[in-house]
Amino acid sequence: MARVRFLPFEVEIETLDGETVLHAAMRAGVHINASCGGAGVCNKCRVFVEEGRARGESLPEGGYKACTLVPETDLVVRVPVESHLDRRALLRAPKRRATAWLAAEARAREIPFEPSVKRHYLELPPPDLSDNLPDLRRLKRGLKEVLGQEPEVEWSLLSELPYRLRQENFRVTVTLYDHPERSAPVVQRVHPGKATESLAVAVDVGTTTLCAELVDLSSGEVLAETSDYNPQISYGEDVISRIEFARREGGLKTLAQKVRERVAGLIEELGQKTGRETEEIDLVVLSGNTVMTHLFLALEPRFLRETPYVPVAAFFPPVPARELGLPTAEGAVAEFSPCVASYVGGDIVSGVVATGFFEEDPLTLFIDIGTNGEIVVGNRDFLACAACSAGPAFEGGGIKHGMRATVGAIEAVHLDTETYEPMILTIGGRKPKGLCGSGIIALLSQLFLTGLIDRSGKFRRDLDHPRVREGRDGWEYVLVWAEDSATGEDIVFTEADIDNLIRAKGAMFAGYQTLLESVGLSVEAVERVILAGNFGSYLDLEQAITIGLLPDLPRDRFFFVGNSSLLGARLMALSRQMREKAAEVARMMTHFELSAHPGYMDYYMSALFLPHTNIELFPSVKEKLED
Amino acid sequence: MARVRFLPFEVEIETLDGETVLHAAMRAGVHINASCGGAGVCNKCRVFVEEGRARGESLPEGGYKACTLVPETDLVVRVPVESHLDRRALLRAPKRRATAWLAAEARAREIPFEPSVKRHYLELPPPDLSDNLPDLRRLKRGLKEVLGQEPEVEWSLLSELPYRLRQENFRVTVTLYDHPERSAPVVQRVHPGKATESLAVAVDVGTTTLCAELVDLSSGEVLAETSDYNPQISYGEDVISRIEFARREGGLKTLAQKVRERVAGLIEELGQKTGRETEEIDLVVLSGNTVMTHLFLALEPRFLRETPYVPVAAFFPPVPARELGLPTAEGAVAEFSPCVASYVGGDIVSGVVATGFFEEDPLTLFIDIGTNGEIVVGNRDFLACAACSAGPAFEGGGIKHGMRATVGAIEAVHLDTETYEPMILTIGGRKPKGLCGSGIIALLSQLFLTGLIDRSGKFRRDLDHPRVREGRDGWEYVLVWAEDSATGEDIVFTEADIDNLIRAKGAMFAGYQTLLESVGLSVEAVERVILAGNFGSYLDLEQAITIGLLPDLPRDRFFFVGNSSLLGARLMALSRQMREKAAEVARMMTHFELSAHPGYMDYYMSALFLPHTNIELFPSVKEKLED
Ligand code: FES
Ligand SMILES: [Mg+2]
Ligand SMILES: [Mg+2]
Repeated sequence: MARVRFLPFEVEIETLDGETVLHAAMRAGVHINASCGGAGVCNKCRVFVEEGRARGESLPEGGYKACTLVPETDLVVRVPVESHLDRRALLRAPKRRATAWLAAEARAREIPFEPSVKRHYLELPPPDLSDNLPDLRRLKRGLKEVLGQEPEVEWSLLSELPYRLRQENFRVTVTLYDHPERSAPVVQRVHPGKATESLAVAVDVGTTTLCAELVDLSSGEVLAETSDYNPQISYGEDVISRIEFARREGGLKTLAQKVRERVAGLIEELGQKTGRETEEIDLVVLSGNTVMTHLFLALEPRFLRETPYVPVAAFFPPVPARELGLPTAEGAVAEFSPCVASYVGGDIVSGVVATGFFEEDPLTLFIDIGTNGEIVVGNRDFLACAACSAGPAFEGGGIKHGMRATVGAIEAVHLDTETYEPMILTIGGRKPKGLCGSGIIALLSQLFLTGLIDRSGKFRRDLDHPRVREGRDGWEYVLVWAEDSATGEDIVFTEADIDNLIRAKGAMFAGYQTLLESVGLSVEAVERVILAGNFGSYLDLEQAITIGLLPDLPRDRFFFVGNSSLLGARLMALSRQMREKAAEVARMMTHFELSAHPGYMDYYMSALFLPHTNIELFPSVKEKLED
Repeated sequence: MARVRFLPFEVEIETLDGETVLHAAMRAGVHINASCGGAGVCNKCRVFVEEGRARGESLPEGGYKACTLVPETDLVVRVPVESHLDRRALLRAPKRRATAWLAAEARAREIPFEPSVKRHYLELPPPDLSDNLPDLRRLKRGLKEVLGQEPEVEWSLLSELPYRLRQENFRVTVTLYDHPERSAPVVQRVHPGKATESLAVAVDVGTTTLCAELVDLSSGEVLAETSDYNPQISYGEDVISRIEFARREGGLKTLAQKVRERVAGLIEELGQKTGRETEEIDLVVLSGNTVMTHLFLALEPRFLRETPYVPVAAFFPPVPARELGLPTAEGAVAEFSPCVASYVGGDIVSGVVATGFFEEDPLTLFIDIGTNGEIVVGNRDFLACAACSAGPAFEGGGIKHGMRATVGAIEAVHLDTETYEPMILTIGGRKPKGLCGSGIIALLSQLFLTGLIDRSGKFRRDLDHPRVREGRDGWEYVLVWAEDSATGEDIVFTEADIDNLIRAKGAMFAGYQTLLESVGLSVEAVERVILAGNFGSYLDLEQAITIGLLPDLPRDRFFFVGNSSLLGARLMALSRQMREKAAEVARMMTHFELSAHPGYMDYYMSALFLPHTNIELFPSVKEKLED
């Protein structure tokens, strides 16, 4: 890590490990023209190194490509005038700097540490004529001495029992499971001799992404994590299209099988990464939205989307993990985070558990922005939730050049306020293919702040600028010229795209207002905003407030929490109290159907402006615009 | 039914429906020579009808074959001198008359009637926007109103649940199971609309015979019963040879599969007999000895016969009936009667439950004579049990012409005290093939009472009679000449056979004595003897006492109980209290290992005489011999 000072702005930033000067500039709020997203091909991102040593590609006319330049010592870098033309870039707040990460990880170390699976090593007395109890009774007697209670043993264990007991002369390791609906613990497995400690896997089953962690249940440590796309994507990008696909002959089975196989693959991968056997895994806790959970379990999802929106179940009984094809220890169990309603699922419940705000005083607004934005408001006294059908715009859906956040996606955008030239960064530093969520929000906010669009999202018609033009689909801004794009086409952002985004953010904002009103509160009363979900982590807070996606509250009230669904799943794996709390949260959470609320439509209509019809709700944006 | 008076003896008897004069004579104690067992081919059973009308085959020399003669009115029948030569036939007590049937069936009507499965018809409110609970929650809510408690629902029910609920607009019949180890009832099945009442099947899984009853769980009525041989017989006649077979590659699986398939066939048959669907069967209760139960469940049986004789389990968890291949309702459960030890099994526990003596005052000796004779002694205060390795002699095993009780088996024998000519009856009135258990005991007792053998079981060497001879296998009695037998060979009864029988009955008697002594009592203290098991039902009490197989107690203390294992299984199906009582009985029953008792060998050696070395133990037999 090194410090980089940008001239002529006299702005300094500490670089991250391996970070390029271009990336550091974006974070520092320094505009450098960059059209190829950091792929090293547009040659527009020239900078000069005035002090210090750095590696990177030099340009024939002198200087280096900022997108290739990595500091080896502290640097002083000059941005030449053709690479920036905008002193007001300095006004940009450093991205994310104002926003804290909620210390949710710390919760994992504070919670009562008592997993619902536990391995007990027993040295049972071998039978003789004076003590020839049956094998099962001998086992139960031994366990009773440890537990003070006799466990339940299901018949399927009996066929192996005599061999397992005798293999190491009646020394066995017994895995016990605390079944949430039974009073006695259940024996999962009897293993000859002394076995290793239990592992667990926590999984966030997202509509787009699957994330999994391998957890050591004796130490609580996360040994490895991995993720991949949800392979159901091939059958439909969003939950609605998957529900549709499930109606086809064999469709539901296919969807279930695909996601199970992929999660199985992730579990194998976690084993390989750590050198641990999947045989050591006694518990898998999965957390997903209601549709994902239904599809994972191959439960009919169609009634979720037909009025009156009835899930098959919201609390799911434990499932033998191997019946789901998950590579685990014999007898291992898969648990699912409980859901609240058709569109407020186990991922949200899990997130609430992970963040712990349901046990604290501050009135908290918990937001998960995705295809279906979910909102929870509450504190230790109450919890209320709602789903906003925001649509997939923030994930690139319904946006002409929208795409998922993969390599080549433009994830950061800055526009020069004078030249309207863009500075873009792509994921992986490849030539740009399209815009992912954070790029979309950045671009929308930049178009608005530079005045290229007005408050209703329409382009200035009077401007004679090659990047602002009337295209085949109406007015648009050309973000990347064909020559710099990976597709060989111009990457544009249209008025129709903007319209979709405004509807999406309007639905979210109207959602906050309606839900808060339903519990007799207003947006200003919110003492803390928690931004959950993968998407939340990449969100630029200022930009999100600028476009009216997030309420204009003091920035120190906002917290990112990352994948709280995954974290919640881990907590439930580590502690049966957490599992019980998840059930409590799911039970106590009042679900509001926004569309049924009489005020919702008015709130929604008023939110279809940038940032909002009522600009007084966004004082900081008003101030910026007045600058 | 008609009365038949036999001349010249002036003995009268009421005939049974369709009974022949020969059979009635056997019951009445009237000797008529009969060599072909009633097959109508030996022509020795001539009688004359002096009064009344009867159907039957006449003989060319006049008179009728008694074995074909069925009364149409009351009759007076004369037995000519060549057909009998023995006035002492009259001394025979009418078979079974002295012995009562225990009114165990009545218990089935008196027990608290509360099966562990129950179907509940629910009319759930269909969901609407104001009440859009998940399907599972709606179901649980509805059941809680009925039960006062939420049931457990396993995940396997969820996939069908939405369809089942909606098929009849949320009117469903829910089958609940009271799992013995869980506090909440478990939902077995959700059926659309109003379903019929539950049926159950009770099964006695005998080493030789399988018996099954179909029971209506709403009325307690037995709708049908059926039985067949245990097809495992092909792999070994007795439990030991089956345990041996199970050690072969795939042997255990084969044994399990064979018996399960046959029980499945019996259940199908019960359905066909009654016109009921096997889909209506929610519960199967099976009762068998410890080895049979292990083999049914495919549990390793080898440790049952290796010291220290350890079963895999004595209390068996419930098993999904369909996993055992039993045709039943979805979700139906199979329960197994609990066992006490390797050789005192669920059939005995079930029998104790069926007879109810464990809740009564009289000191009772419960005897199940079979390959392994089991003995229980006790009353409401205590229960003690033991197994006697009597061997299969009483079932025809190890007896030269022994056979199972099928068509052609000689089941009743009487010998003329002067001519030593036999009167035999076969099952089905066919030409004789061999001797089954009751025939064997009858013949032994007759040989003893006629003086053809002495108290040590040796034939009189001094007698010049064609039927008593030295054959290839030593001394023997020819019961059927080759010309009259179905096999074309003489049917004989050898000294070696007799020796086996004496050892077998000696083992039983020494068992009673040892077990009683172990609890500080003697045989005379026994206030009631219950003879259980299929075999018990065919036993002639006088004959069994004569040979010393049963103690010489007043005859009114003896009771037959028939298949008490089957009856016990039925009671457990009808009442969860009975299931609980079976568990109590199995738990409280003290098991004694006879061979470990220091006195056992002496008792056994003393019992190797007819009826016993100490004739004072058999006063009534002593009296007969003195006659
Ligand atoms: S013909 Fe009657 S018994 Fe043989
Ligand atoms: Mg998610
Ligand atoms: Mg039996």
